[in-house]
Amino acid sequence: MGVITALNSPKPPPGGPGRVALEGAGPGDPDLLTVKAARLIGAADVVFYDRLVGPGVLALIRSGARRVYVGKVKGAHAVPQGDIQDRLIAAARTGAFVVRLKGGDPSLFARGGEELDALAAAGVPVDIVPGITAAQASAAAAGFSLTHRDCAQAVSFVTGHARTGAAPDLDWAALARPNHTLVVYMGVSTAGEIAAALIAAGRAPDTPVAVVENASRADERVLTTALNGLAELVGCAAIDGPALLIIGEPAAKARSKAAAQIVTGASAPRLKEVAA
Amino acid sequence: MGVITALNSPKPPPGGPGRVALEGAGPGDPDLLTVKAARLIGAADVVFYDRLVGPGVLALIRSGARRVYVGKVKGAHAVPQGDIQDRLIAAARTGAFVVRLKGGDPSLFARGGEELDALAAAGVPVDIVPGITAAQASAAAAGFSLTHRDCAQAVSFVTGHARTGAAPDLDWAALARPNHTLVVYMGVSTAGEIAAALIAAGRAPDTPVAVVENASRADERVLTTALNGLAELVGCAAIDGPALLIIGEPAAKARSKAAAQIVTGASAPRLKEVAA
Repeated sequence: MGVITALNSPKPPPGGPGRVALEGAGPGDPDLLTVKAARLIGAADVVFYDRLVGPGVLALIRSGARRVYVGKVKGAHAVPQGDIQDRLIAAARTGAFVVRLKGGDPSLFARGGEELDALAAAGVPVDIVPGITAAQASAAAAGFSLTHRDCAQAVSFVTGHARTGAAPDLDWAALARPNHTLVVYMGVSTAGEIAAALIAAGRAPDTPVAVVENASRADERVLTTALNGLAELVGCAAIDGPALLIIGEPAAKARSKAAAQIVTGASAPRLKEVAA
Repeated sequence: MGVITALNSPKPPPGGPGRVALEGAGPGDPDLLTVKAARLIGAADVVFYDRLVGPGVLALIRSGARRVYVGKVKGAHAVPQGDIQDRLIAAARTGAFVVRLKGGDPSLFARGGEELDALAAAGVPVDIVPGITAAQASAAAAGFSLTHRDCAQAVSFVTGHARTGAAPDLDWAALARPNHTLVVYMGVSTAGEIAAALIAAGRAPDTPVAVVENASRADERVLTTALNGLAELVGCAAIDGPALLIIGEPAAKARSKAAAQIVTGASAPRLKEVAA
């Protein structure tokens, strides 16, 4: 690992201006952090982190560093986005090396763009360190490729949750094309509406779907169904952890990583839970 | 890093059946490998690798391991896909721990799906280890988020190159929606056709575009233009390395990481090269 550890750290020199690394904390398993992200977490003076950052990732923070939780507490309001930005800026202005950990990748959803804008406006230097997204970890866990030369030439990533909590106002016709995989983040609560919208827009009702919960974590689950069985699946599968929907022909190849397949929901013959 | 190094390796026990790890080699910088990928490269008995796998990544292969190059040699034919699959299977059947390195992420393009199918059909156990994609590394390099709550609720990844070498037969109307970032892999040679197709399908001609070449590598370049300047940009920017097109409102925020901005192409006022 000589090549890797010899690379420089963006940690600011003592006494100078601070710096922020906006880092992808990946899907949860610390083994899926990038080498750079793991090293910078251990070098940080202050670490801001969200609810979806895994405990194994947080274990890499050095004992002298300050930890600041800015995630949502169940049943309570999240820290307002503007407050998070103000606190990042204030921490950097003390000269600290600040690591801002975001689940997945900071360039994909999760309001990384807003934090970048605020830090840039305040003149705080920022480095972006990419991370493995939940979609990548889910495909890896379920053993299939999001694209496949035979059946998917494109893949789209959307959020299934608008500001209001309803299904977002997306162009479902555009997202309903065949040979085009659709990955929906935060789509469990709106899964039925999304499936209905896609079918109404022309997507085949038997389009394969994989639902992956807690990708890369010990309690990971891979569930498979068809688009017209999706509402029923999320209705009976008790999905509590972070999960995403992967809709498209490649999901037909979602595989078990265990010897047994657990079939749940006697009323739902399309529902097949694949034990991780 | 105690948490990380204590995790188990999927290396097969001596004398037993072999195993393949289909690994994302990331965008080039070995610092952007996952911790798991870096460790498994160092543990492999045989490593198969493509043209886009960076030299710093290959430096992690242990000296006793066999290295097998299966990429395309300039001006020559690539190793046929079926041959690669046969060689992976044969190597695993000797009982070896085989690492198959693919640039970026094995679940996104690059025919990872075909290799998975072939290995599964042959009964060879496979683990997928995700990697940072060129798109993620490009966004990190250029300092913007692929999505932004204000201007992009979705992002799509497509390949710009069909089997025939022409622009692919994609649904450009579906990909031309506003507030939807489009990332085109292998799209430099067809960039003019893609821009024309998107404009014809209704995408605004002044939609921002960033072209990122050699993301994460020492010779990384970030070039910005508008959709109606894209053909001119790729015509005069001499893009030789792997590059991708990021088309959409968030690309307006592509930033310089250096003090100077180099403006090239006097005939192209929209063309701005941002030195990495």
